[in-house]
Amino acid sequence: METNATPGDAAALDDPAYKAAVVDLLGVLAYGELTACIRMATDSDLAPSLRIKAQMAGFAATEYRQYELLVARLTEMGVDAEAAMQPFVAPFSAYHDRTRPKSWIEGLIKAYVGDGIAKDFYREMGSFVDDETRAVMDRALDDEGTGDFVVGVVRDTLKTDPTASGRLSLWGRRLLGEALSQGQAVAVERDSLAGLLVGGGADLTAIGQMFTRLTDRHTQRMGRLGLSA
Amino acid sequence: METNATPGDAAALDDPAYKAAVVDLLGVLAYGELTACIRMATDSDLAPSLRIKAQMAGFAATEYRQYELLVARLTEMGVDAEAAMQPFVAPFSAYHDRTRPKSWIEGLIKAYVGDGIAKDFYREMGSFVDDETRAVMDRALDDEGTGDFVVGVVRDTLKTDPTASGRLSLWGRRLLGEALSQGQAVAVERDSLAGLLVGGGADLTAIGQMFTRLTDRHTQRMGRLGLSA
Repeated sequence: METNATPGDAAALDDPAYKAAVVDLLGVLAYGELTACIRMATDSDLAPSLRIKAQMAGFAATEYRQYELLVARLTEMGVDAEAAMQPFVAPFSAYHDRTRPKSWIEGLIKAYVGDGIAKDFYREMGSFVDDETRAVMDRALDDEGTGDFVVGVVRDTLKTDPTASGRLSLWGRRLLGEALSQGQAVAVERDSLAGLLVGGGADLTAIGQMFTRLTDRHTQRMGRLGLSA
Repeated sequence: METNATPGDAAALDDPAYKAAVVDLLGVLAYGELTACIRMATDSDLAPSLRIKAQMAGFAATEYRQYELLVARLTEMGVDAEAAMQPFVAPFSAYHDRTRPKSWIEGLIKAYVGDGIAKDFYREMGSFVDDETRAVMDRALDDEGTGDFVVGVVRDTLKTDPTASGRLSLWGRRLLGEALSQGQAVAVERDSLAGLLVGGGADLTAIGQMFTRLTDRHTQRMGRLGLSA
């Protein structure tokens, strides 16, 4: 499927194929924020201190606000937000079932590393959409300090428990594998997203380069945590 | 312990005993909102539909905003919010351990019935504090539509599964028992709160009447759900 949309042109939404791709993109992003919110709040319950617990609940609340922004945009486009999110319930559920953190620190790393990969992908997709859609996506993708907090907490943990490093590095690699595998499943299922890339002029080389950028950024994130990728 | 504070007088905070009582009240309320937020988000994960899941996550986000208001007020008073909440971590943890919902509907009823009892108690305490403290408490106690939503969902469930009524009524009674028992444990431990009642002129009869009002309102809430108290 190809689209004839010109990125940067809001009227492009009149093209049904392009609109379907944008609805998929906002839908997957909205459902991702909703599950990230629920996961973060759930994992906060195991936090070792009141300070970390409150901080994690705060990040969950931020993710909910970002979810609301995306729902508002879908509604504004005359789209039922629930219907837009529905196709992504099963793949997210599969990803989360396969990456259940066994501790709050694994939960935090998952939020940083797993969500990081997803958000990098959405940012890549941002160059194929109109300005208005991209503006909403940018606001929803704002990290709002979560990363700095997670990096600090994980580095502190590694200082007091250096043996954790190997186990947590392995955990990071597993997250990358599961994220890419579920992402691929979504891409196969929803050809609107692939159509967006192809319609936007991305050839196989460009798509390959995009995946290289995604794994490079994953390696950088792991490095910031003090872990090996 | 008695306080010489006059409710309605913000300068009353200069009285150390009165200030300690207000700090306890805002601290227990803040920690209650934080745990309510985390519980609601955790329970939302079991919700049977995307609509209910999103709604529950939204209530969790609202509870987080109310928590933030209380923390801001404590900080404004020059009090460390974490220290103010700390005494209430253990009793809340005991309450939640003894009332773990076995399904999302039990979780919703707990949010409505359990939090309802707690919030009624805080509202009662509101008549013993200065106007400014009461204004912050009122905003933090706003139900923001949670009640109407829970009532609708529980009534719908009872329509499709009438056998649930007995089991959920029993659950409501257990929540009342555990809430009163943990509330009493807090009152014994933190005599500042009892001092607030006594200093405000409440005698044993008045305190007895307050408990009657709390159980009356519990009965009304159970009735709204279509359950027997």
